[in-house]
Amino acid sequence: MEVALFGAGRIGRIHAGNLARQPGVTLRYVVDVDAGAASALAQQHGAQVTSADAVFADPRIGAVVIGSSTDTHADLIVRSAAAGKAIFCEKPVDLSVERARRCAEAVQRAGVACLIGFQRRYDPTFNAVRERIAKGEIGDPEMLVVTSRDPGAPPVAYLERSGGIFRDMLIHDFDIFRWILDDEAATVYATGSVLTDPAVGSVGDIDCTAVTIRTRKGRLCQINTTRRAAYGYDQRFEVIGSKGMLQANNHRPTEVVASTAAAVSCDLPEHFFLERYKAAYAAEMAHFFEALANGTKVRTSIDDGVAALVLADAATASWREQRIVTL
Amino acid sequence: MEVALFGAGRIGRIHAGNLARQPGVTLRYVVDVDAGAASALAQQHGAQVTSADAVFADPRIGAVVIGSSTDTHADLIVRSAAAGKAIFCEKPVDLSVERARRCAEAVQRAGVACLIGFQRRYDPTFNAVRERIAKGEIGDPEMLVVTSRDPGAPPVAYLERSGGIFRDMLIHDFDIFRWILDDEAATVYATGSVLTDPAVGSVGDIDCTAVTIRTRKGRLCQINTTRRAAYGYDQRFEVIGSKGMLQANNHRPTEVVASTAAAVSCDLPEHFFLERYKAAYAAEMAHFFEALANGTKVRTSIDDGVAALVLADAATASWREQRIVTL
Amino acid sequence: MEVALFGAGRIGRIHAGNLARQPGVTLRYVVDVDAGAASALAQQHGAQVTSADAVFADPRIGAVVIGSSTDTHADLIVRSAAAGKAIFCEKPVDLSVERARRCAEAVQRAGVACLIGFQRRYDPTFNAVRERIAKGEIGDPEMLVVTSRDPGAPPVAYLERSGGIFRDMLIHDFDIFRWILDDEAATVYATGSVLTDPAVGSVGDIDCTAVTIRTRKGRLCQINTTRRAAYGYDQRFEVIGSKGMLQANNHRPTEVVASTAAAVSCDLPEHFFLERYKAAYAAEMAHFFEALANGTKVRTSIDDGVAALVLADAATASWREQRIVTL
Amino acid sequence: MEVALFGAGRIGRIHAGNLARQPGVTLRYVVDVDAGAASALAQQHGAQVTSADAVFADPRIGAVVIGSSTDTHADLIVRSAAAGKAIFCEKPVDLSVERARRCAEAVQRAGVACLIGFQRRYDPTFNAVRERIAKGEIGDPEMLVVTSRDPGAPPVAYLERSGGIFRDMLIHDFDIFRWILDDEAATVYATGSVLTDPAVGSVGDIDCTAVTIRTRKGRLCQINTTRRAAYGYDQRFEVIGSKGMLQANNHRPTEVVASTAAAVSCDLPEHFFLERYKAAYAAEMAHFFEALANGTKVRTSIDDGVAALVLADAATASWREQRIVTL
Repeated sequence: MEVALFGAGRIGRIHAGNLARQPGVTLRYVVDVDAGAASALAQQHGAQVTSADAVFADPRIGAVVIGSSTDTHADLIVRSAAAGKAIFCEKPVDLSVERARRCAEAVQRAGVACLIGFQRRYDPTFNAVRERIAKGEIGDPEMLVVTSRDPGAPPVAYLERSGGIFRDMLIHDFDIFRWILDDEAATVYATGSVLTDPAVGSVGDIDCTAVTIRTRKGRLCQINTTRRAAYGYDQRFEVIGSKGMLQANNHRPTEVVASTAAAVSCDLPEHFFLERYKAAYAAEMAHFFEALANGTKVRTSIDDGVAALVLADAATASWREQRIVTL
Repeated sequence: MEVALFGAGRIGRIHAGNLARQPGVTLRYVVDVDAGAASALAQQHGAQVTSADAVFADPRIGAVVIGSSTDTHADLIVRSAAAGKAIFCEKPVDLSVERARRCAEAVQRAGVACLIGFQRRYDPTFNAVRERIAKGEIGDPEMLVVTSRDPGAPPVAYLERSGGIFRDMLIHDFDIFRWILDDEAATVYATGSVLTDPAVGSVGDIDCTAVTIRTRKGRLCQINTTRRAAYGYDQRFEVIGSKGMLQANNHRPTEVVASTAAAVSCDLPEHFFLERYKAAYAAEMAHFFEALANGTKVRTSIDDGVAALVLADAATASWREQRIVTL
Repeated sequence: MEVALFGAGRIGRIHAGNLARQPGVTLRYVVDVDAGAASALAQQHGAQVTSADAVFADPRIGAVVIGSSTDTHADLIVRSAAAGKAIFCEKPVDLSVERARRCAEAVQRAGVACLIGFQRRYDPTFNAVRERIAKGEIGDPEMLVVTSRDPGAPPVAYLERSGGIFRDMLIHDFDIFRWILDDEAATVYATGSVLTDPAVGSVGDIDCTAVTIRTRKGRLCQINTTRRAAYGYDQRFEVIGSKGMLQANNHRPTEVVASTAAAVSCDLPEHFFLERYKAAYAAEMAHFFEALANGTKVRTSIDDGVAALVLADAATASWREQRIVTL
Repeated sequence: MEVALFGAGRIGRIHAGNLARQPGVTLRYVVDVDAGAASALAQQHGAQVTSADAVFADPRIGAVVIGSSTDTHADLIVRSAAAGKAIFCEKPVDLSVERARRCAEAVQRAGVACLIGFQRRYDPTFNAVRERIAKGEIGDPEMLVVTSRDPGAPPVAYLERSGGIFRDMLIHDFDIFRWILDDEAATVYATGSVLTDPAVGSVGDIDCTAVTIRTRKGRLCQINTTRRAAYGYDQRFEVIGSKGMLQANNHRPTEVVASTAAAVSCDLPEHFFLERYKAAYAAEMAHFFEALANGTKVRTSIDDGVAALVLADAATASWREQRIVTL
């Protein structure tokens, strides 16, 4: 199968490398507004730089990978669907629920496969928790506590266009919530503060949040987030069920333990998402082409993308309007 | 110093044992409506069984330890204060904030020392976190996540008189919140469910809760609770600050690790509060008599007892009325 | 039962405190060459200072606790046995195997109970490993790896009279070996070095050792020791059996975990033997009086004391003569 | 650079996959006595099946990777050296120290690069320990304790040709010893037993060993090994120095922790060497081609291969002849 990649930035390069390892898959085109980046990446993988139009016009292209900026996703999804290409698109679908829903409709109408890049569902640790819950190891799930902390805030220029912390950062956690509890939100309560950097507040955003979701089945979920954890990227969750608890803990670069006169210590967590989810990105890409080959559903559908966005909107409204949002 | 003990039940016996280890302290009287229990405990410690009236009338009694049922606390505090006795009283002060406040006033008027038994503040692990925060190890505290889970729910008969999960169980967590963040609540949001046993719901209570507190300084606190953790008594919290995180983890009976074909495993947490806080109960009693001897303030004052109760009331209202409570 | 204590030093005070907690047991006499120490300890526990002769002549004394210096043990054991007193004696029995054997004979002849203070057998963690092996959790034990490291070497003046590292420090590990594997040594190989302080070498001793024991059943045991672990008192062992492994790990003062920009760290191990084995010393004393009350065998007999000393002698010979010693 | 691979078995396939990821490196030839295996692997990587003679005659081949059976290593090394090819050869060089030394001489004479596949030196955890020692984190290293346990013994047919446990299994540990302590053995003592399967004894081998090395500088090293750890592949070591300890612990497939009514448990260690050292094999191959490109020394030279074999011979003699071997 021949594939076109939109976006030759950081995440685009990750996807290109993973594409190269799929048997029977060839990266033919790279598209990016930055001609230099497109050219360098294309050359590295023996692909050609081209335009979006050329991609959609080329019948040899069976699938596209969309890793370009968020504001391009909706248009590329709709056009890819119209052109009958299978779609692998980075999260989020869009910053607008309405536009995201239109994308989902376009995908459904076209009947193409569409995977939204919630890569955490492909992480070995997170995935093992999901499978062990499904096997009944902790009985019926009752509560979920999600810890989601970044090592540092992105530049303010990024924050301004990000849609706010709930759409930009917690969207992953909202997806994890839906996936792990296999349930939907009934009410959402969110609060937050600017505690790490006043600049975050200056663009109308917050950097620390506390979110509570009560599900239709009465289950409870709490999410705690900060943009700045001094010790690094902290990505944990724990699920309590009637028979026990499963915890997904951080990964470390090495398993060295040092004992000195000061303390017994181990490594910090893996630095950030590119390191922490390296295996997840690879598994996600393999999953996409396996699903295409086998005609099976993808694990992270565009409906999942819409649903996470709805939760992000609800949380944003709850925080801004200081009220409990009922869904 | 000679001391009278009210209550010869489970917690009374713990306190009697710890009293016996304080140098220069003698347990003279035991008072309990259950004459048999009073007599057995008195005999074990060379004390006498007597009535409350006799205790308050005896000028040799310098301090009382109140470990009787919750509905007796307020009256005993007021009478002890009036009699000029120093007071060590189990939590809660009372189930009514109004009555608790009257107790606090009585104590203040009398000028007697009064320690409320929030024993967790005396736990070596919890206390070490507090001291390390005070030393600036994690900079300014920003978020607190409290995990507070019991191994199993008490009998329904107990629940009916307990004041509900927020006053009975989370009151400890509300105290931990105030103590660790050294801040006061601005808003409280609480939700909950009956997930472990329908009988809990039949008496108008819940067994799983999710509480969020936003403080006056904008800090965030989340508390997650269940009455039934299949793996035992789970008492952890973590504090995130500008420079890092401190976690207070569970204690285990032994440090054995077993590796078999099935898993690598360690002990369950210490079973329940009597085991987990054994050292804390001992340290709490020692602290009380040291404070009396030195004329210093007690770490857990009756004002702390009132403040925790105010939070429990706010959480109860938030849950019942499905609204965010502003304090 | 009334008891006399020989030795009012550090370990004597520990034993006196534990004696005071045994129901029905009274400390009547304290004997020590240091009159001030004896007097202070006696006063604290309402006991009297007296002489050894007076102890042995007093028929009310049912048991003695020997915590005086090593060179007094043998004589006090023999005299206590002759006087028909039950004996609790700190390790070692003596530095001479021959004298230790004569003590064992005296005890046997007199038919008195005699517990040798290998307190590690009473530690909750170590004891749990022993019990879980006995229940078959790891099948048949095959190998034992013992890590035994002190936080720092004692003064050279102590080392000179200590009998050398194998008799002074590893005697505990030799006892653990016999107890955990429930087997006896066939061959012993020991080597060692002076690596931490040349002063240790100046008195003919070593500060780091590596010992290997092969048992009669062909099992293997390795012991590694140093007098100076910069991070504190390191007391671990692991047993491999046909079905798995059990590890006894260090205990920590608190369960705080700190995550900063530098590392994720936890407490150092409990500082030294008085802290690490506090619960073991208490359990050992309780075991002694329970055994006396019930007429059951003590867990750490004088024969165990002799056997550990034989291994210490074998290791010393192996190291000095650079040969494998067959027992 | 064009490369030829000898051996298309399990380890050959690993190396071929890693070769494919080196920039500027092409796998041209695969050589194997098993024509089917050679053909399948060649096809997968776009290489050709050929003979050893053809490899050595082709001047385009700059390097060879030897992953064929142990008895072919010496001959292939000598011929590769004579043909001026850079050599990447799986451990061991040979089972005979004499032949291994002749290989080393041939390599030195030819002046070709030669890396022996002690892949553990390229493991992220093990390598981090080495680097942190070099930075002085634990001061001067004094003791090394190596735990090296396989999940199960290979078939007896394999054992018969393996050279015995010391040459087959502990050769890695001997290499780790030399690398971590940066020191050489002065004496070696080894003992062992047949405890897991009598069939091992029937071919004159053992399945459990305990080895002690004393170095020229007086440092101590203990290695404990078994062919059968019920819980999997256990590969740890710890180094004690004057300022602390560094431990290299096991890696796990996921970081899930499960808490149930039975226990708190985590994953077993990664299953066996292909899983545990996956990253190490990749890093080793990258290191080889970097060293070739930069003209720098390889981390694991053929002299290291000879030195580890000398230790294996010494340990074998010590065990067989029940004596301490002086080197």
